[in-house]
Amino acid sequence: MEVKAYAAQNETAPLQPYIINRREPREHDVQIDILYCGICHSDLHTARGEWYGTMYPCVPGHEIVGRVVKVGSHVKKYAEGDIVGVGCMVDSCRECASCQEGLEQYCENGFVGTYNGQERDGSGYTLGGYSKQVVVDEAFVLKIRDTENLAGVAPLLCAGITTYSPLRHWGVKKGDKVGVVGLGGLGHMAVKLAASFGADVTMISHSPSKKQDAEKLGAHHFLLTKDANEVAAASGSFDFILDTVSADHDYNMYLGMLKRDGKMVCVGIPSTPGQVPAFSLIMQRKTLAGSLIGGIAETQEMLDYCAEHNITSDVEVIDIKDINEAYERMLKGDVRYRFVIDMNTL
Amino acid sequence: MEVKAYAAQNETAPLQPYIINRREPREHDVQIDILYCGICHSDLHTARGEWYGTMYPCVPGHEIVGRVVKVGSHVKKYAEGDIVGVGCMVDSCRECASCQEGLEQYCENGFVGTYNGQERDGSGYTLGGYSKQVVVDEAFVLKIRDTENLAGVAPLLCAGITTYSPLRHWGVKKGDKVGVVGLGGLGHMAVKLAASFGADVTMISHSPSKKQDAEKLGAHHFLLTKDANEVAAASGSFDFILDTVSADHDYNMYLGMLKRDGKMVCVGIPSTPGQVPAFSLIMQRKTLAGSLIGGIAETQEMLDYCAEHNITSDVEVIDIKDINEAYERMLKGDVRYRFVIDMNTL
Repeated sequence: MEVKAYAAQNETAPLQPYIINRREPREHDVQIDILYCGICHSDLHTARGEWYGTMYPCVPGHEIVGRVVKVGSHVKKYAEGDIVGVGCMVDSCRECASCQEGLEQYCENGFVGTYNGQERDGSGYTLGGYSKQVVVDEAFVLKIRDTENLAGVAPLLCAGITTYSPLRHWGVKKGDKVGVVGLGGLGHMAVKLAASFGADVTMISHSPSKKQDAEKLGAHHFLLTKDANEVAAASGSFDFILDTVSADHDYNMYLGMLKRDGKMVCVGIPSTPGQVPAFSLIMQRKTLAGSLIGGIAETQEMLDYCAEHNITSDVEVIDIKDINEAYERMLKGDVRYRFVIDMNTL
Repeated sequence: MEVKAYAAQNETAPLQPYIINRREPREHDVQIDILYCGICHSDLHTARGEWYGTMYPCVPGHEIVGRVVKVGSHVKKYAEGDIVGVGCMVDSCRECASCQEGLEQYCENGFVGTYNGQERDGSGYTLGGYSKQVVVDEAFVLKIRDTENLAGVAPLLCAGITTYSPLRHWGVKKGDKVGVVGLGGLGHMAVKLAASFGADVTMISHSPSKKQDAEKLGAHHFLLTKDANEVAAASGSFDFILDTVSADHDYNMYLGMLKRDGKMVCVGIPSTPGQVPAFSLIMQRKTLAGSLIGGIAETQEMLDYCAEHNITSDVEVIDIKDINEAYERMLKGDVRYRFVIDMNTL
């Protein structure tokens, strides 16, 4: 079927209206009317061909919430009218050890991204949520219980789960001293989630302008990395640091802020490798690790948790015609903290 | 009291005979006749002033075994005639959280190294095991149960515990796929220990000449890093990699060999920082960590474990007059796998 969308036709073209073709729902598919779609930095990198080879025309978008309008004959979990979400994945091999354990994001055969991914049936590449409708296997569709603020829920599908998963995996709990590096889409969710777990949360930023915002989001402290005295005073003070920054930066400064057995987990991917002196890890048995989004079961757990605890993303809702301007503002960090497209405007 | 020793008088001087002064045993002290002292790479770096400021004259040596000849009035654990060991530490603050947990190696106030450490009573800096006798607080003295092969036991006090501690801390167990990078003093102990835990052990080396030796030590497989096919075939195959190499090397190649949730732990300290792309950690939730020797309780556990399982270091026993030649051979990697000084030759 024909579906309205916004697409980049090549690396330098702005996103513009474009008609795409979606498959008719198969036995296990759910057809979704998209209501809101969050804008992730990955969308921009992919639309502009800055990562791993983009297939054009490219329709980004992997923070999708919408309403089910049709289900395949074998669909069990969803019915017409349900409010649902789709995140970064629409398929995986479902057979490898990771898939069997519900960790589809680490699928040994590669998960299928919601956009710019290769469909497993060889039918082509995937097109994302900057569109009126999407058709997804129910195994990769999430139930949305918090239907009050769907725009604020959309970014949970990527920014939310990307920060929730490492906080849970490494067991962040009440009383832990947690640092969050970077106050963007990911960072603001990390602050909200860590604080909701009862952790003592410090926003770590190079920008003094973030202080007030961080506190509003629930951070208990603010550490300005430009201030050498503050950095020195933070030495050995954190149990866990979640590093959400994708710009090149000095991992070693943050490693110095960890306690013995402290863990720093990266979710941002800077373009150049981090410089990590073994000494910085060895002297207090510290860990540097990475984490990628989350599995489907954990994403559902996160959505349910957020619904129960009234946690949503702080968003600025935009018309889809303003998408290219939103990209430019995102590059300047001029967004608190996530743009979300109101798909009614398409 | 005056004690015969071998010391470096400055950064460029060879080690030569020298008379040092040891304190008379205090209430909690044990006076030990040194029988054997292993030679660690740290000894060479410190003697030559290559690390952090060496105080001269410098007497290295922190893999000490000997016989108790005198004990202070309050000593409870040891008596004259006992065979004992002293490792890398002779004191710590004993009050911080790490010390209270038996992790003196991570003492928040800095442990006192067996040589080139500052005595906590302000009496000067410590002098190590290249000497006839040493006086150490009983809290930092270890019981040696395996008295058959004391030369082979000596290196357990540093090389043994440095590899035992991370293998235990990260829970290496039967059936785990374990890689050991580098076949030197640390690496050969890592192979023996990991194999004794029931792990499936692969020696990872750039030198084909190490293959036969690795298998003799108990490694089940050998991976030659110069062979790109072998490296590619090892992708995503290890649960745990212990990296014992202190020369600059490419962490990223080894990170690629880890499975999802795999852990690589560094115990060697290269002089330049490792290059660690966040991508390499994120895509399969991998960990890079460090580990430093082990606490006193764990060192005793390791010695007891090795005694029970007949694990000792493979050593070449030397006369102390040959120490400078041994250093040169060590720099060329010409030792299988640890030099140990027979202190009777002093």
